[in-house]
Amino acid sequence: MGPPGAQRAQYAAFARLDPAIRQAQSPDRKLSLVRTQVDLAITSPSPARLSKASVDGGAREFSATVAELKALCASDLNDVNATIMVALKSQSSMIAEIGGHLINAGGKRLRPLLTLAAARMCDCANDDHIRLAAAVELIHGATLLHDDVVDASSLRRGASTANVIWGNKESVLVGDFLFSQAFELMVAAGDLRVLQILSRAAGVIAEGEVLQLATQKNLEATFEMYLAVVESKTAALFAAAAQAGAVIAGADARCEEALRSFGRNLGVAYQLIDDALDYAGRENALGKSVGDDFREGKMTLPVVYAFDRATEADRGFWRRTIAEGSQQAGDFEQARKLIISTRALDDTIACAKRYAARAVEDLARAPQNTFTKALADLAVFSASRIS
Amino acid sequence: MGPPGAQRAQYAAFARLDPAIRQAQSPDRKLSLVRTQVDLAITSPSPARLSKASVDGGAREFSATVAELKALCASDLNDVNATIMVALKSQSSMIAEIGGHLINAGGKRLRPLLTLAAARMCDCANDDHIRLAAAVELIHGATLLHDDVVDASSLRRGASTANVIWGNKESVLVGDFLFSQAFELMVAAGDLRVLQILSRAAGVIAEGEVLQLATQKNLEATFEMYLAVVESKTAALFAAAAQAGAVIAGADARCEEALRSFGRNLGVAYQLIDDALDYAGRENALGKSVGDDFREGKMTLPVVYAFDRATEADRGFWRRTIAEGSQQAGDFEQARKLIISTRALDDTIACAKRYAARAVEDLARAPQNTFTKALADLAVFSASRIS
Repeated sequence: MGPPGAQRAQYAAFARLDPAIRQAQSPDRKLSLVRTQVDLAITSPSPARLSKASVDGGAREFSATVAELKALCASDLNDVNATIMVALKSQSSMIAEIGGHLINAGGKRLRPLLTLAAARMCDCANDDHIRLAAAVELIHGATLLHDDVVDASSLRRGASTANVIWGNKESVLVGDFLFSQAFELMVAAGDLRVLQILSRAAGVIAEGEVLQLATQKNLEATFEMYLAVVESKTAALFAAAAQAGAVIAGADARCEEALRSFGRNLGVAYQLIDDALDYAGRENALGKSVGDDFREGKMTLPVVYAFDRATEADRGFWRRTIAEGSQQAGDFEQARKLIISTRALDDTIACAKRYAARAVEDLARAPQNTFTKALADLAVFSASRIS
Repeated sequence: MGPPGAQRAQYAAFARLDPAIRQAQSPDRKLSLVRTQVDLAITSPSPARLSKASVDGGAREFSATVAELKALCASDLNDVNATIMVALKSQSSMIAEIGGHLINAGGKRLRPLLTLAAARMCDCANDDHIRLAAAVELIHGATLLHDDVVDASSLRRGASTANVIWGNKESVLVGDFLFSQAFELMVAAGDLRVLQILSRAAGVIAEGEVLQLATQKNLEATFEMYLAVVESKTAALFAAAAQAGAVIAGADARCEEALRSFGRNLGVAYQLIDDALDYAGRENALGKSVGDDFREGKMTLPVVYAFDRATEADRGFWRRTIAEGSQQAGDFEQARKLIISTRALDDTIACAKRYAARAVEDLARAPQNTFTKALADLAVFSASRIS
């Protein structure tokens, strides 16, 4: 179970290089340091571990890399937002309300930014990437609405979830509406290959959510099962978003594949950190409830590792709280303690860094310009974010 | 409120002609009688009303017309079923189970039959209509799964609903999966206009469901509001299914529009009878619970008419049971009694017949062949079915 020990520890070098990357002013210098970091990460034989401090230190940097990417794509992103607003127009005021609540209240716009940056990196010639980026965000919004119903979540991005404000029924139906609007935008972009890529991703996401439901409360879940869920429910849309940008810009097969792989690896890294933060995060910084995964009995990597490494007594704790779902006051704190003491948290983060490094490597096969650099930064800091 | 009185009663002629149409052996004779019936229906000035008996009498005939259509499209329908089975294959056994439960357990396959018959009527040259018909059934299946969650239904086609057997979460996610598989099939068919037509329909369906939720328990709902819901949640997919068949077969604009309008009018007629049957139907024949709409406080046409025509005392009954949702034993029987005594049921059925007649008229603008005749029969008897 889990990645081999050597790989698991190999990315300690990231922690040491992070400050230098943060301080580097020129994008070229930054990229060169990122590459050094990746080389180190790939070759480093020392089993050193990442400290939690290095994770916290990455907070501002991740926000800064997202902001940098948004600045690079500012005009496109405005157009994407306008396109989404038009797509949310409806006879039903409830659709506009729920859609607006979800789409406008915060949200990093990470996925549409991947589409925009990929398209710009590959010199897109028209406005179709705007429609595709908007479609990607609408697909994401639809899955969030349905996820929050499925997970009975109450807090997202620091605000109450739609299912709490408007009800589950409304969230299911408005999710369906967003999904259909996404398809209309994709159809309007008029590229059958892109349609194929994004509709496949939508299917894989739904499959991943069903798989996740099936592994819930199942302490037998392995690293491989966990990874299959993450690749489907999160990485598939990141991959499709980046690939769609490349395809619509007419990129060649090598570049298209590089961006697809970049999106996939970034998506896995991003979800691994999300799952780590559900135990290690601070509620305010995160803008969503901490401990949701624990309460739902989700078999995320921190629990997979912690259970695997637990004493027989601690296994009893996990069986009661996760498998039997019988939880009481103080259990979440105990779970957090066990996840830290077994180094399950550190190793989850190390695994995220491994995927982030792969994402940066993928970019070597893409055109080299400011968009590439911004995406590389995004990947590096996605594995050291705290929100 | 409601259609003008003259129109409302105009279709009594249908009831008188039905037996002759049923007995006619040759399709030509049948079509000619249908046309006579439509002419009568359009011109009949007498305010006669339809009897409930004529509705019951139509039961076998509707099944027979569906069977006739299935026989005409037998080979295509086999291919559609095989295509659906492939689309339901998944890593997740739950998807295959739920999908199979929904798609295989009964179901008239009305919507895919519209696509197949329209395509064959217009001499389609390849197999793309198979994929589109399968996609149409998958979209329908996805909306059924989500509807049953939204309506908290427990019985459909004589079997327990998926939300009862597997749970609401599972139904939401598997519905999303079916939806995405539908899009993949549409993309595989490779016609952007068809994609545009069907993705628009999916959006309109979701909008219609949200609108229906908003009119629920609202006794102010008018005939026009009711019709807007029915046109969106039901007729839009019937219309798109028939139109998609025409487009993929390369039909001209006039024929395409005729089939779209046919589908729309048939869909409205079909839903009107569905809503009548929720009060007038017999649970066994219907294969779904009678009284669901009443329990949910849905403002279907029988209630819209009955409330409009109610005495002040009876209005109190509707306010308590529908607006306040406070229901007790015997209330459904009382509601049924009021709907019959105010002729709300008769007029709902008359309205269905008017739409069925329009559907038959639409077919005059399409090619005339055996498929056209079968669709005309389907429309006529859709308004006199009991299941």
